[in-house]
Amino acid sequence: MALPQHLSGDVVAINAFIDKFDVFLLDCDGVLWSGDHLFEGIVETLEFLRSRGKKTVFVTNNSTKSRPEYQKKFTAMGIPSDVEEIFGSAYSSAIYISRILKLEPPKNKVFVLGEAGIENELRTENVPFIGGTDPSFRRDMTPEDWQGIADGSLLDPEVGCVLAGLDFHVNYLKLSHAYQYLRRGAVFLATNVDSTFPMNHNFFPGAGSISVPLINMTGQKPVALGKPSQAMMDAIEGKFQLNRERTCMVGDRLDTDIKFGIEGKLGGTLAVLTGVNKQADWEAKDAAAVPAFYVDKLSDLRAAAQ
Amino acid sequence: MALPQHLSGDVVAINAFIDKFDVFLLDCDGVLWSGDHLFEGIVETLEFLRSRGKKTVFVTNNSTKSRPEYQKKFTAMGIPSDVEEIFGSAYSSAIYISRILKLEPPKNKVFVLGEAGIENELRTENVPFIGGTDPSFRRDMTPEDWQGIADGSLLDPEVGCVLAGLDFHVNYLKLSHAYQYLRRGAVFLATNVDSTFPMNHNFFPGAGSISVPLINMTGQKPVALGKPSQAMMDAIEGKFQLNRERTCMVGDRLDTDIKFGIEGKLGGTLAVLTGVNKQADWEAKDAAAVPAFYVDKLSDLRAAAQ
Repeated sequence: MALPQHLSGDVVAINAFIDKFDVFLLDCDGVLWSGDHLFEGIVETLEFLRSRGKKTVFVTNNSTKSRPEYQKKFTAMGIPSDVEEIFGSAYSSAIYISRILKLEPPKNKVFVLGEAGIENELRTENVPFIGGTDPSFRRDMTPEDWQGIADGSLLDPEVGCVLAGLDFHVNYLKLSHAYQYLRRGAVFLATNVDSTFPMNHNFFPGAGSISVPLINMTGQKPVALGKPSQAMMDAIEGKFQLNRERTCMVGDRLDTDIKFGIEGKLGGTLAVLTGVNKQADWEAKDAAAVPAFYVDKLSDLRAAAQ
Repeated sequence: MALPQHLSGDVVAINAFIDKFDVFLLDCDGVLWSGDHLFEGIVETLEFLRSRGKKTVFVTNNSTKSRPEYQKKFTAMGIPSDVEEIFGSAYSSAIYISRILKLEPPKNKVFVLGEAGIENELRTENVPFIGGTDPSFRRDMTPEDWQGIADGSLLDPEVGCVLAGLDFHVNYLKLSHAYQYLRRGAVFLATNVDSTFPMNHNFFPGAGSISVPLINMTGQKPVALGKPSQAMMDAIEGKFQLNRERTCMVGDRLDTDIKFGIEGKLGGTLAVLTGVNKQADWEAKDAAAVPAFYVDKLSDLRAAAQ
């Protein structure tokens, strides 16, 4: 496979690159910021792309925040944004359930392993759910739980789907419930399956850490609604009516972002070196994916503004 | 591979079988009992084997109880037993750490994901540990945790090993700690990696559900100290000075019990049909293991007593 073209410092190449696309799908963490640290020049770079008539869409696997909650982070960072240009895996999951799965009563409830972001997106799509942040699931097992989960008397017969996202309050009780619903035939979905979650310049358990015990127990794999799942790309295309040929995916991770763009047959992919993966990763023989272009940092694109 | 010999109802075959062995390693759940229900004739069957001069050793992957705690279960079930004939994965892990790993200060502490059984066995072997049932780990993440786990200031520099067993109080905080210790080079052990845990005639998350997020995050596999790991067989052999040729493993699970006996090159393996696996499982092309003998239920061996 051809190695990516390095754009940093090459104004002609940057201009040619920008002219190829109408839409930029941008990953956030590792591209715009790292945790709570905004990278230098990001606000100006986004402004520059928009001034050239480009549409920017922020595509994140973080399922803990709904789109309005995520927009608050943009505002706090000083990045102008519209809630409609934010596309998270919680939203992706909610619209997959409401528009693709279309669960019918009496089996139309979702058992949620995750935080408020998922719940808020499910509410927006009028999808009934249990679990999630409900305090009655945030506790130790009791003898009644063992009995009632095992014999089914404590299970909700209306649950037809288990949705596993990043849950900072994961516990044995919730995993036990989720497992029983899956054994009884519930559809298995995951907002995303990232094994780790970047935070405070380090890594913590990701959404994949919540679903993997269930995968291990059931032998089933969930349909994942985050990058690199093409279910997410289809949802983005449906929402924004984008021309894939004229769309570029920008990200720091080969196995999610770049793979997502390549498998989605987008016109291009741009890797940045401000996050997880480095040049050596796509030069490796077993590279998860090889981008078409790369820059050292996203703000290198601004060189073309001068 | 030859199919197993069916012993039930065949007194001559049972006598020949019993005469082959001096020691019977017996799995407990699914063999002696199911949850809190003791199978009929078990007490008499064990009595019969002992009356024929056989040594019985109870080998369990359940790490939540120490040997003395497990013995209480035997007593409550009405089964005479000696604490010395009980061999659990918590004990197996403790002696692996103290006698094989032999961690040296200042990196000799174990971070425990698990219940009191593990702690008690570690104490018996004078292995220092943190985590486990410590209430200060049974809570939600705070902003200080994110920061202090990420920068290492909240980590104990003396931890040199992570031991993951069945933890009914697993949470995000403990998984975050365990992951950071592994990233910093701690040895990764698991009491056992059973994906599920049989309880109340159903299944719940097993010890494997606690270690699998860490496997997924680190790409590392733990050394597992329960069946079918031969580390456990070596420990049993070391303790009981048994002659493997004259030892038979008895169990209900092909992928743990029977595999354990075959890989341990024991003189024989006996499957019982009162637990997880059935005849069709070893007749399947992809059978995890094929026993040498089987009985419908353990108490069928008593036919030879008449």
